[in-house]
Formats: sequence, structure tokens, C-alpha cells
Amino acid sequence: MKNFPALEIWLAHRVSYGETDAMGVVYYAEYLHYFERGRSEFIRELGGMSYGLMEEKGIALPVREAQCRYRRPARYDERIYIRTGLQEWGRASMTFVYEIYDERKEALLAEGMTLHACVDVANGKPVRLPSWVQGLFEKKQE
Amino acid sequence: MKNFPALEIWLAHRVSYGETDAMGVVYYAEYLHYFERGRSEFIRELGGMSYGLMEEKGIALPVREAQCRYRRPARYDERIYIRTGLQEWGRASMTFVYEIYDERKEALLAEGMTLHACVDVANGKPVRLPSWVQGLFEKKQE
Amino acid sequence: MKNFPALEIWLAHRVSYGETDAMGVVYYAEYLHYFERGRSEFIRELGGMSYGLMEEKGIALPVREAQCRYRRPARYDERIYIRTGLQEWGRASMTFVYEIYDERKEALLAEGMTLHACVDVANGKPVRLPSWVQGLFEKKQE
Amino acid sequence: MKNFPALEIWLAHRVSYGETDAMGVVYYAEYLHYFERGRSEFIRELGGMSYGLMEEKGIALPVREAQCRYRRPARYDERIYIRTGLQEWGRASMTFVYEIYDERKEALLAEGMTLHACVDVANGKPVRLPSWVQGLFEKKQE
Repeated sequence: MKNFPALEIWLAHRVSYGETDAMGVVYYAEYLHYFERGRSEFIRELGGMSYGLMEEKGIALPVREAQCRYRRPARYDERIYIRTGLQEWGRASMTFVYEIYDERKEALLAEGMTLHACVDVANGKPVRLPSWVQGLFEKKQE
Repeated sequence: MKNFPALEIWLAHRVSYGETDAMGVVYYAEYLHYFERGRSEFIRELGGMSYGLMEEKGIALPVREAQCRYRRPARYDERIYIRTGLQEWGRASMTFVYEIYDERKEALLAEGMTLHACVDVANGKPVRLPSWVQGLFEKKQE
Repeated sequence: MKNFPALEIWLAHRVSYGETDAMGVVYYAEYLHYFERGRSEFIRELGGMSYGLMEEKGIALPVREAQCRYRRPARYDERIYIRTGLQEWGRASMTFVYEIYDERKEALLAEGMTLHACVDVANGKPVRLPSWVQGLFEKKQE
Repeated sequence: MKNFPALEIWLAHRVSYGETDAMGVVYYAEYLHYFERGRSEFIRELGGMSYGLMEEKGIALPVREAQCRYRRPARYDERIYIRTGLQEWGRASMTFVYEIYDERKEALLAEGMTLHACVDVANGKPVRLPSWVQGLFEKKQE
């Protein structure tokens, strides 16, 4: 991605046998698991809070849309990198973008995005993003 | 299994691509998913109650032990059968057994068991199996 | 979808416990598994050929892009419907679209698409879609 | 396990949201994925060879039996440890044992085993374990 967000994090991941399919490569749905691993790392490391704790504080971020483009296959036992960036804050949503790279961080294997609603855990209704959530990450951008 | 329990149920299942691995066959952990599908069908059809409703009534049956023997591989797009039987009631546990067959119900592909504790959902503690749970299935055995 | 393709198929699917996550609903990556189940059914039933046999004949259809919009959550033990349609033939690609419905086929739970390249299994290179592949489905459209 | 094999390795793993289920804990089949991650690490680090390379050299180690006992649940975002040991060499098989621990390596969450046949990739038939396979690990035991 030409303009990957400045607020980003990289996470290494080893491809397991269970993530592959009969074509000998990583099954396409597994990339959404990779995105989630990257997103969790992003929230924990850059936000300073586990996503689980965020849910305990009453805010959930369910996925409203997910998209992935597959460039090159990843294979068993490969060490890949998951790059995660926070692209956009909406009034009641946020958008993450992702890139999956090979071990040398050179070849782009896949890229995608997820759009998340902000929801009140107590009643499941959409709510405006609380300022404390946005605040977690803004510190990092300064 | 020579003495498969009389209280049993068969469930057909189509092997998806996502269940296979790079060896071209169903990945070994997927068989525990098959067992769970069979178990859910057993509880719903023979017990007359979804396992989800059982949890709402306050009783969960978390797995304490699982075991599987793999005889022959299953492949993409195969239609297999999951045979599930209720083998034993403990004071605070129950044991299910399983067999996985090919489309003709002839070749045994895998067999296994799961041992479940009976737990009070409210506090997570083990409890004696309520008589209403056992009652659900005993009607069927008469 | 207002204009769902005429060449379509519906597949029933029971949500398993293993497909849910800690939020109590179906995990977002599972929808790509559902799409694949629908696509396999489409190829087998409307094309008259298993996708596995297509691969044996030398043609693979790896996913180049996948997208999903999540409308309402699906839950454990729900019986859902996977609607699959063939939306477009490219010179060397094809596009499927999907809708996931609740048991009554009324509430739309999710919708999405997958774009597939046409690849020669022997060397992994993209090739023009063979006329026999397109022919499998055109019979059905007449 | 009182007598865990001396030839062992520990692997850290972060529990993802996709590994949890509606009970809020890691789904029981995921532990077989953990075992596989541990086993792959064992072969790569102690054997000095990726399991994938072993398959390229003509030897596969399909699982013939798997077993797991579940002690305490693991939860989203927990950092757990997968301990893997090589317990036994058979004439044409090998047995791995596993323990899953919490972040402090104190609480035992689960334990299990997998029994593997040794198979000739070319024809899928069981074969005696080649001495080079055993040799990979024996160096480490001296």
C-alpha cells in the first residue's frame, strides 16, 4: 500500500500445517485470522490495553466488513509478517488495514482491511466511539 | 466399535476445502469438530433440546478429555457420516463415543470419545448431573 | 442483493460450537468457509462436477479477492442458508457472490463475493478459462 | 507429567479471538493445533529440519492417534506455552507428548499425546523409520 498509516505495528507469525489446505498453501479464510492477530497486537501494544479489557470496559468492536486481496501463496512453516495500521476513525467506527509479507518483509503476500462498528457491550447497540478509546492511540501518534 | 451404544445417531457431513491440509486430506483437529457436530445433533434430536438451551438452563458440559484414532483419510468433497453414541453416565460426567464413516457407511475412517464434566454455568463448578438432563435421554432408551 | 444472479443455489448449514467465538456469535472468518461450502455445492450441483475433479482435469480456481459485509450475527446451533450465485465470467477469472440467511430465509446475516483466477495446475500460471468449464454452467442457464 | 521426556522444547503462543468459542474459552479442537505447532517447532529446532523438508525427502508422519486432557481453560489474549517432548520411537512410529501452560509456566492447562506412523510419501505405505530421521534427534540427546 503506497500510503500505509504511520500508526502501524508488525507481528511475526509461523504458518502451521493446520492453516494450509489441499492446494498446499494457506487457506484463504486464515488471512482473516492473521488480520485479527495483527489487530489484537496493535491494540495491546499501541493502545496499551488488551481488546479483552476493552470489552470488559463496555466497548466491543465487531467487524462490519472485511476484505482481502491475495497476491502470492504462503506455505507451511514459513515465517510471515502481519503489518497492521489504523487507517481511519469514524464517528462510531474504525478501519484497520493490513499487509502480509514473507520472512524478508519483501514480497507482499496479501493485503486487506476490516471496518469495525463501535458497540455498547451492555445492549449491543452502536455507540459513538468513546474519547478514551481514541485517546489510547493518539498518544502514540504525537 | 464392537459394542456401540444403542442410543446413537448418524449425521451426514460434506468435507469442505477448508478442512483439508497440505497433505490433501482432512486435518486431524477437524475430527474433534466432527465429534462436536455429532454430539450437538445427538442432544438436539435425541434429547429434544439444543445444547445452547441446556446452557441457558444453567448446565454446561465442557470437554475434560478427547481422544481420536485415525484409520483412513477423508478427502475434500467426500460425504462422510458421523455416528455418535452416549456411552456412559457418571455421577457428574458423561461420555460420548464416535465413529466416522465414508459415504457408504462401510469404511471406518476414525473413531474416538469425549468425556464431559457437568458444570454449573453460574459459578463454573462441577455439579452432579441433574436428573432432568439424564431424563431427556432415558425416555429414548425405553 | 437487488440483482442476485439467476444461476444460483441454496445450501443449508448448521452452525457448530467451534464456529463461534468469545462474543457468542460466529467468528468473522467462518463466513469465508461458508462461502466456500456454497461455491463447492454450486460447482457440484450446477456444474455437474466436483471442484476436486476440476483440479484433476488441470484447472484450479484460487481466490484472488474475498469480501464480506456482516449484517447480523449468527449463533450456535442456528440453521442458516448459504446462497451462492455466479456473477461474472472474466477472460481468465470468475466471480461468485453470496448471501447468508437465517433459517426462515428472511433475515440477511451477511453478504460477500470472491474473485477467482483460472490457473493451470501443472505450472501454477494463469490461463484463459477453458470453454469446457464455462460450458458446465451454461447448459444450466438455458 | 512426572516424567516428561528430556528431549523437549517450549514454544510461546498468543491465544487469538478466533481460537475461542461461545463459552469464552479456547475451543477444544484448538489444542490439537497447539500440539502441531509444538511438534513443528520440535522438529525444526531440535531435528534441524522443517517437517516440510522431511516430506520432500519422502517421509511423512501422519497422526494415527491423538489424545488431550483439559485441566483449565485458556482465554483470549493469554500468552500460553506449548511444551513438546519426544516420548518414544517405535519401529515405524513415534510418539510425542505435550503440556500446555499458562504465561508463568506454572498452571497446567492441558496435556496430551500424538502417535505418528512413518509413511513413504511416494506410495502412502507405512515404512520402518529411516535411521536419518532418528539420527536428527539423537545428536541432541547426547
